[in-house]
Amino acid sequence: MRTLSVIGIGTGNPEHMTVQGIKALNRAEIVLIPRKGEAKEDLADLRRAICERFLDNPETRIVTFDLPVRDAGNPSYRDGVDDWHAAIARLYADLLSEHIGADGHAAFLVWGDPSLYDSTLRIIERLRVETDAAFALEVVPGITSLQALAASHRMPINTIGGAIQITTGRRLRAEGFPPNADTLLVMLDGNCAFETLPGDAFDIYWGAYLGTEDEIAIAGRLKEVAAAIVEARREARSRKGWLMDTYLLRRR
Amino acid sequence: MRTLSVIGIGTGNPEHMTVQGIKALNRAEIVLIPRKGEAKEDLADLRRAICERFLDNPETRIVTFDLPVRDAGNPSYRDGVDDWHAAIARLYADLLSEHIGADGHAAFLVWGDPSLYDSTLRIIERLRVETDAAFALEVVPGITSLQALAASHRMPINTIGGAIQITTGRRLRAEGFPPNADTLLVMLDGNCAFETLPGDAFDIYWGAYLGTEDEIAIAGRLKEVAAAIVEARREARSRKGWLMDTYLLRRR
Repeated sequence: MRTLSVIGIGTGNPEHMTVQGIKALNRAEIVLIPRKGEAKEDLADLRRAICERFLDNPETRIVTFDLPVRDAGNPSYRDGVDDWHAAIARLYADLLSEHIGADGHAAFLVWGDPSLYDSTLRIIERLRVETDAAFALEVVPGITSLQALAASHRMPINTIGGAIQITTGRRLRAEGFPPNADTLLVMLDGNCAFETLPGDAFDIYWGAYLGTEDEIAIAGRLKEVAAAIVEARREARSRKGWLMDTYLLRRR
Repeated sequence: MRTLSVIGIGTGNPEHMTVQGIKALNRAEIVLIPRKGEAKEDLADLRRAICERFLDNPETRIVTFDLPVRDAGNPSYRDGVDDWHAAIARLYADLLSEHIGADGHAAFLVWGDPSLYDSTLRIIERLRVETDAAFALEVVPGITSLQALAASHRMPINTIGGAIQITTGRRLRAEGFPPNADTLLVMLDGNCAFETLPGDAFDIYWGAYLGTEDEIAIAGRLKEVAAAIVEARREARSRKGWLMDTYLLRRR
C-alpha cells in the first residue's frame, strides 16, 4: 500500500518546519512540488529551499508539476472549486502511477497547516474515492499564517475566555463582524473587506508575507490604519507580483 | 536590555518543535519550567525531555519553579484570573532578577502556541507595565492542540469557504452552537458541554493527549459517540491523574 504524507511547512520561514515534518520529508520517495506560474514562483522556490536545507535522504526525488488552473469564470464558486479539485485529483493519480510503485511513499508540502483553508486533504480524499486507491495517509501539522500573524504582533489571539471566529474576506463582506465573537481572523481576502466595517469600532492587526524576509506588519485602530494597509498591499503586490496576507480584527 | 523568548512547543510530541523554536531555546541563558504539582508532572517532564533532546548549548541553565495556584473560589472568574496573573508576573520578575543579568536572555516553553488560550504573553505584558521593565520580546509559534486534533483525524478544519468558531466549554454551554459557523472548535472544556447539544445535528471529532503516545481519538455522529467520549475521559483522567482534550463539532 502507498503512503501519502501531507506536511505543513509553515508560512515562508523555512525554520517553521517541525522535526516531525523534516522526518516525514526524509521518509518519502518523492516530494511533489507544484509550479504556479511565474508570479508565485517564490512559493515553489520556498518549497525547493526547504528540501535543499532539510532533505538528507539521497533516495528522495523532487517531482515538479503544473497545477491545473481554477476556472474563475464558473458562475458557481462551489462548482468551480469542485471541477478544479477533480482535475488535480486526476493529476495526482497520474503522478503517483508514473513516479512511485504500489508500496511507494509520496510527500506533499502544504503552505501553513494542511487542515486550514488548504484543499490538499480534500483532493486526496477525492483521489481515494474516485480511483478506489488504497493508501495510508499521514498528516503533519504546520504553523499557520494566523499563528505567524499573532507572533509577529506578539499578541494573544483570544481575549480571556472570549470566542474567536475564523472566516474569509467573502463572508466578512457579506455578513459583517460576527456578533458572538470579539476576535475575527480573516483569510483569503483579496479585496480589503475590512473597509466595509465601522472604522472606530475595531482594532486591526495585519500582516503580509508573514515569516519571510519581506514580512510587513501594521496594527492600530482600524480607521487610522486602513488606508495605510490598502496602500501597503497595493505597493507590495505590484513590487512582488503576488501577495499573501491575513489579519485579525478585535472589537474595541 | 533583557530578551524574553516565548516558545510554542506543540502538544506533547517533542517532534512538534520547530527549527525556529529549537534555535530560540539554544540562544537562551535560562529556560523557565513550571512544576504544576504531582498530577501534571507529566507536562513538566515533557518540557524537560524537549530540553534534553534539543538543547545543545552547555551555557543554558534550566530553572524550575512552582507556579502560584489560581483561587478557584473567587466568585468573579475574571478577577480570579487577574489576581493569579499578577502573582505570576511578580514571580517572573523575581526569577529574572535572581537568575539573569540586565542583558540576559530567558526562554519560556509554552504548551501549544503562545497566542492561543495561553496566558504567558498577557503575564509578560503585565511584567512590562508593573515593573517598568524594558525587554525585547520574541514569540515563536508552535503547533496547537486544534491542529494536532485535525491531523489525528486527517481532516480539514474548515468546510469550503465556511467559517470556524473557536470557543470554550463555558461559552458553548451558555450560548449553544454558533448560528454563523458550521465548524466549532472547543477548548478548555472540563465538563463535556457537547452533551448539551442535539446529538443528531452534529458530528464530533474528539481527541485527548494529542501528539503523545497516549493519544485517544473518537469521531462520529454526536449522539452515537457522546457516551463513549464521556467514558473515555473519565477512564483516562482516573488512570493518568490529568486530562488534556479538545474537540471539533460540525453541523451535519
